Amino acid sequence: MRLGRLAVIGVGLIGGSLARALRAAGAVEHVVGCGRGRANLEKALNLGVIDSYTHDVGEAVSGADLVFLAVPLGAMASTFAAMRGHLKEDAVITDGGSVKASVIEDCRAAFGELPSGFVPGHPIAGTENSGVEASFAELYHNRRIILTPTAATSDQALRRVEAMWGLCGAEVTRMEIGHHDEVLAATSHLPHMLAFGLVDTLARMKENDEIFRYAAGGFRDFTRIASSNPVMWRDICVANREALGAVMGLYLNEMSELAETIRRGDGERLLEIFSRAKGARDRYVDGLEDCSGASAPQSRQE
Amino acid sequence: MRLGRLAVIGVGLIGGSLARALRAAGAVEHVVGCGRGRANLEKALNLGVIDSYTHDVGEAVSGADLVFLAVPLGAMASTFAAMRGHLKEDAVITDGGSVKASVIEDCRAAFGELPSGFVPGHPIAGTENSGVEASFAELYHNRRIILTPTAATSDQALRRVEAMWGLCGAEVTRMEIGHHDEVLAATSHLPHMLAFGLVDTLARMKENDEIFRYAAGGFRDFTRIASSNPVMWRDICVANREALGAVMGLYLNEMSELAETIRRGDGERLLEIFSRAKGARDRYVDGLEDCSGASAPQSRQE
Repeated sequence: MRLGRLAVIGVGLIGGSLARALRAAGAVEHVVGCGRGRANLEKALNLGVIDSYTHDVGEAVSGADLVFLAVPLGAMASTFAAMRGHLKEDAVITDGGSVKASVIEDCRAAFGELPSGFVPGHPIAGTENSGVEASFAELYHNRRIILTPTAATSDQALRRVEAMWGLCGAEVTRMEIGHHDEVLAATSHLPHMLAFGLVDTLARMKENDEIFRYAAGGFRDFTRIASSNPVMWRDICVANREALGAVMGLYLNEMSELAETIRRGDGERLLEIFSRAKGARDRYVDGLEDCSGASAPQSRQE
Repeated sequence: MRLGRLAVIGVGLIGGSLARALRAAGAVEHVVGCGRGRANLEKALNLGVIDSYTHDVGEAVSGADLVFLAVPLGAMASTFAAMRGHLKEDAVITDGGSVKASVIEDCRAAFGELPSGFVPGHPIAGTENSGVEASFAELYHNRRIILTPTAATSDQALRRVEAMWGLCGAEVTRMEIGHHDEVLAATSHLPHMLAFGLVDTLARMKENDEIFRYAAGGFRDFTRIASSNPVMWRDICVANREALGAVMGLYLNEMSELAETIRRGDGERLLEIFSRAKGARDRYVDGLEDCSGASAPQSRQE
């Protein structure tokens, strides 16, 4: 499979790892990187992740057969707008944004109508680290990639993007746009809100120094995602506010009921809730290890 | 330091690890184990964790210089009651319960008044595993132990329990009873409620099979504590319902405000909340690594 010339807009962990994987597969003939920071692009060049770079999106996509957008959600609109008039007619465009409806809306707004070559996508992959120096060719190995084709997406473009992710060793599935945003709101965006909310609640308590001092191993693991990039999460929340707002409503109802059950000391009901949760967690979540190949690290609990 | 004859009531991870550590330190002359399950006690005997065992609490504590209660919170009351009339006059009693006011109340109820030899304690340590086969002598190494002496606790008993934990390589601190229960409600009990509540919310959604299928690495780490023992957590919630109910109220206010901020798409306010949480997490929680000596496992996030 030859994918031709690749333009990566945003050469960080996500964009850099795609470029590395496709180079390792021998599937691309030239990779042009695009971004605002010169130092990062120089690093990408020195690391052999890209062959050339530019700060100009229009220049980057000129002559590209495949364009990958790995910019923050808040930068999608201006990036699409900067592409307009510079794309090859048969260029295939895909992205790595973690909310799909908003990216599609940004694309439509920039182009007037959705290009047939645009295949919205979301690789369910990442690490705690960021920047091109954190990128590696195996990031997408055995990871799920969700593609959410639009009504305008051509079969040819869709197949090409599926093949691209296949070359990275990923497992590709298709999903309806709104459904993707709902599923991710529940499984990724909501947990991040919980962690941010928990840490912020404790930070706002009196004597929070002491409270954090007695927070031990389990707490550290549990709140790790509260160390995530605040700008990225602001963008995700704003972009997916409808689906996330809905699932947060469900969660708040659950937690209000749980708080009330605790206050009245209803042990029988608590046991029922905890047993159901444990059952679901053990049943579904441990099943995931079969797919990702990763085994859960041992963590201490109190 | 010689501690004499040790009785461990409840020979699992917590009780077994204490016995192993004190044996390794050469500080005990005989360890008697007590519990309901014969198979577990036989295993403890074969593993060399205990020297003898009995199913009778009164028999176990007869002649013991030091008694360690590592039974579930729900079994504390009956265990104290079974000790009555069998303790040596100068016996020192301590426990590993994760809520302190309720254990102290159970002790008072059993003995009529609090014994001067009773030193309530809480080792902030554990692993995901349970049972004596999971116990190891280093469990308490560099871990925090909180002691919450009562008004009746004698200095001699307190010093003896501090010495006992010191022999295990632990860091001992003293705390006021109610304050312990508030701090643990915030740093341990509340996070468990969040995890149980999150998993249960998702389990109750339509198409929850699919939702869990797309939950990836970060979710698995985040919800690991929802796999904890439901009976143990029911006991903790009931025992600490006042402090936990209060901190859950604070958390619910925070999350309601966050949900509202998301629904109205107020990016500026979101950035403020997320930045404050990230700041607190990075500042306080990473500082903990200095104490525990454990480094955080790398985990994938989406």
